[in-house]
Amino acid sequence: MNGIFIKILLSLAIFTNAAAAADSLPSWNDTAPKKAIVAFVENVTREGSPTYVPVAERIATFDNDGTLWAEQPIYFQFLFAIDRVKTLAPEHPEWKTREPFASLLRGDMKSALAGGEHAMLEIIMGTHAGTTTEAFEKIVSDWIATARHPQTKRLYTQMVYQPMLELLAFLRANGFKTFIVSGGGIEFMRPWGEAVYGIPPEQVVGSSIKTKYEMRGDRPVLVRLPEIDFIDDKAGKPVGINSHIGRRPVAAFGNSDGDLQMLQWTTAGEGPRFALLVHHTDAKREFAYDKGAEKALDEAQEKGWTVVDMKHDWKVIYQPAKR
Amino acid sequence: MNGIFIKILLSLAIFTNAAAAADSLPSWNDTAPKKAIVAFVENVTREGSPTYVPVAERIATFDNDGTLWAEQPIYFQFLFAIDRVKTLAPEHPEWKTREPFASLLRGDMKSALAGGEHAMLEIIMGTHAGTTTEAFEKIVSDWIATARHPQTKRLYTQMVYQPMLELLAFLRANGFKTFIVSGGGIEFMRPWGEAVYGIPPEQVVGSSIKTKYEMRGDRPVLVRLPEIDFIDDKAGKPVGINSHIGRRPVAAFGNSDGDLQMLQWTTAGEGPRFALLVHHTDAKREFAYDKGAEKALDEAQEKGWTVVDMKHDWKVIYQPAKR
Repeated sequence: MNGIFIKILLSLAIFTNAAAAADSLPSWNDTAPKKAIVAFVENVTREGSPTYVPVAERIATFDNDGTLWAEQPIYFQFLFAIDRVKTLAPEHPEWKTREPFASLLRGDMKSALAGGEHAMLEIIMGTHAGTTTEAFEKIVSDWIATARHPQTKRLYTQMVYQPMLELLAFLRANGFKTFIVSGGGIEFMRPWGEAVYGIPPEQVVGSSIKTKYEMRGDRPVLVRLPEIDFIDDKAGKPVGINSHIGRRPVAAFGNSDGDLQMLQWTTAGEGPRFALLVHHTDAKREFAYDKGAEKALDEAQEKGWTVVDMKHDWKVIYQPAKR
Repeated sequence: MNGIFIKILLSLAIFTNAAAAADSLPSWNDTAPKKAIVAFVENVTREGSPTYVPVAERIATFDNDGTLWAEQPIYFQFLFAIDRVKTLAPEHPEWKTREPFASLLRGDMKSALAGGEHAMLEIIMGTHAGTTTEAFEKIVSDWIATARHPQTKRLYTQMVYQPMLELLAFLRANGFKTFIVSGGGIEFMRPWGEAVYGIPPEQVVGSSIKTKYEMRGDRPVLVRLPEIDFIDDKAGKPVGINSHIGRRPVAAFGNSDGDLQMLQWTTAGEGPRFALLVHHTDAKREFAYDKGAEKALDEAQEKGWTVVDMKHDWKVIYQPAKR
């Protein structure tokens, strides 16, 4: 026990230093969003104050794509799926003539996606199902360790937003439990979420396909089935939060219309609440776009939610790349 | 921050006392199960040893009915459902002539359950759906605070097993994260799981019905639908564990065939693993029965899992009742 006790004391020392530090958010400019975050955290942690929130209730939920890491030119999980189509093609000769796979294999993304949601689903099911959960975890881990973004040439984990990493750490140092609540695949995020964000698998909520328990000889496995289990997006986000967390967050962070209901659900609770949208305004350092975030940005203005203007509010977007 | 810091130091002081105490399991006789538990915990917490398990991986899952609290003459959640049928009957005049409700209202449980699983499902859907999640939480909280067991006349929360409460605390004091993984309803357990077991809502996995996000005026709600979402029993338990926790437990605790797959899944992992079955052998202090646990008891013997003989291994079953 002694070893553990010392470790905890050490981590506490770090913890109090972090929280007491003059600036736990060094990559944030000293503009309104940073001030709003710091004021909220002070309000909920000030004991005896009417805005105090007990530690057990300090739940903060974060969208992933476009909120914790970039999502252009397309969700990174979809780039993973395309790489999987290429890898798996020799085992699927029928893909040469079957859409959307045929177009993808020719490098014609536009035609591949012409089928819309149905085409996306085909690609996900063709690349995310059929393995055991253990095998899929290894596939994701190997890909995330080596694949690089087509434009920045960075590892995808080097396209996480440094200011958001600081925010996650700042909240945790103040007693918050941080969760991912993403439309992305839960099994796509878990293998690297702990190392990159400090968010353990049990605090990741996402979309999922069904799994089935079966014995292979003496060994039980969970097999991933080509069947949607849950879509953790839009009105699905409060449903996923209720299912996995079982209490309403006091703070929620998103960037698009897919996060709107999560922010509504979070702010509809009693007591102090915090809602923040990351607004992609920095064409030079990241990407500039409002598409798919119009409703959320309107409602943020109407309700006084915090909006981060990436260009003006963030000193740094990504950590310096290690190659 | 100071207040929080002091609180954490105080809780740490309790924590190290608990773990360092000569006996963290005073309600357990000094027989094989207690020795096996203590040896396992020593093995996984001994730093530098080949059996050491990092804190983040110390996941322990507990069945609820028959493992953490009693389950006779029938699951307590079903007694809740029957009480709900009586309460809701004035709003449902059709129940007077509709089975299984008609029999239930006449107090004829045997006829009510003659329809088997379908009848159970009818009763659950008729009593667990149709409200918002918030309203249902209040209904459960009110019931659990006042309803009493037909035989013992105790509150149901006074029918939790004292040795298991000590075990939960002992594991947590040694860095484990404790989860409930129960066939019972997730929303039935969450309202009181934290106060009674020290297990927060986000660490409760259970069966669920679907919910739907909708706006009522300006206010978003989650409405409980009369539709099964997930059955967290038997082969569903590893599926639920994978969905909610995302990593394999190192220790699992159950009492019946409904827990068998959870114990198989847990023990199939690499490194030290612990599986325990509570065997109901004490007709005098609790109930004596093997029904529904035959397969699990056989496999426990075959694989050398720990089996608790309640009559011989536990000094106390329940805490003294407060009335």
